[in-house]
Amino acid sequence: MAAAWHTTLSFEPPLYGVSISPKRATYKLITDSREFGINFLPFSAAELIAAVGGSDGRYIDKFEEFKIAAEKPRRTSVPVLKLAYCAYECHVVDDHEYGDHRLIVGRIVAVHLLKEAFTPEGVLDIAKTSPALYLGAEQYLDAGGAPVKRLEREKYGKKETP
Amino acid sequence: MAAAWHTTLSFEPPLYGVSISPKRATYKLITDSREFGINFLPFSAAELIAAVGGSDGRYIDKFEEFKIAAEKPRRTSVPVLKLAYCAYECHVVDDHEYGDHRLIVGRIVAVHLLKEAFTPEGVLDIAKTSPALYLGAEQYLDAGGAPVKRLEREKYGKKETP
Repeated sequence: MAAAWHTTLSFEPPLYGVSISPKRATYKLITDSREFGINFLPFSAAELIAAVGGSDGRYIDKFEEFKIAAEKPRRTSVPVLKLAYCAYECHVVDDHEYGDHRLIVGRIVAVHLLKEAFTPEGVLDIAKTSPALYLGAEQYLDAGGAPVKRLEREKYGKKETP
Repeated sequence: MAAAWHTTLSFEPPLYGVSISPKRATYKLITDSREFGINFLPFSAAELIAAVGGSDGRYIDKFEEFKIAAEKPRRTSVPVLKLAYCAYECHVVDDHEYGDHRLIVGRIVAVHLLKEAFTPEGVLDIAKTSPALYLGAEQYLDAGGAPVKRLEREKYGKKETP
């Protein structure tokens, strides 16, 4: 499925959360298998994101229908997409109801990266990866086309001394 | 504080979550008052985000130090920044430990919007608002400078019929 509500939750252990309606087919797949994958896709795959978001895995095989190429996962059986510049394999550690959605929290047990996706200092290279960001209302933003600037918080902030 | 890990969690009731280290001064402020504000700032305020992120409210008054103009909140006592194109006032409904952070979940009880921030159909106008997106490693992206395209999921997906 295509998910718009998700965030990192912890550095140590590395935890990632994704908010899913329990009505989605994906919800049952995750709670049955106790694992899930997070795939970060480039703007060039925005049509695929729309296609996956606009169909239901109970009735079609999305991998076959949309010719989605997958890689071999390392520590789970979750789908890792070849198109992803970054993907996480996660073990479910929590499943918590918040209103009409549930927050599925996973421990990241394997990370797949396109070698060129990150700079030598470990920062996502936005120009090279061109991440697709979903704005809501069927709109997708190409982060690779946006200006980026670096601002050291130590320079702009005030020293943390009493 | 400047927060990088946050997401919507539910439509009904409207819930928003933000992941905060319990070591931050903000964590105690929120858990004591049982309320918090979320302010979405434009790229033109990136230096302010860096300054707020690089200082500690236990030792300085950030509002005074960085000349942050605030508006009157409507249903809480939380800070609503004049610079924000969108801001939420929230009542805390949950505070859950996930690894080295805690997810503070709030019910949105008031919303402040710049009139020009949203299109008549209720979609964020990226070109007009130019949101600042934090990439990690002190890097800020100007979403207003990025291309956006609209892709109807119904068109790209497959009909959800058995």
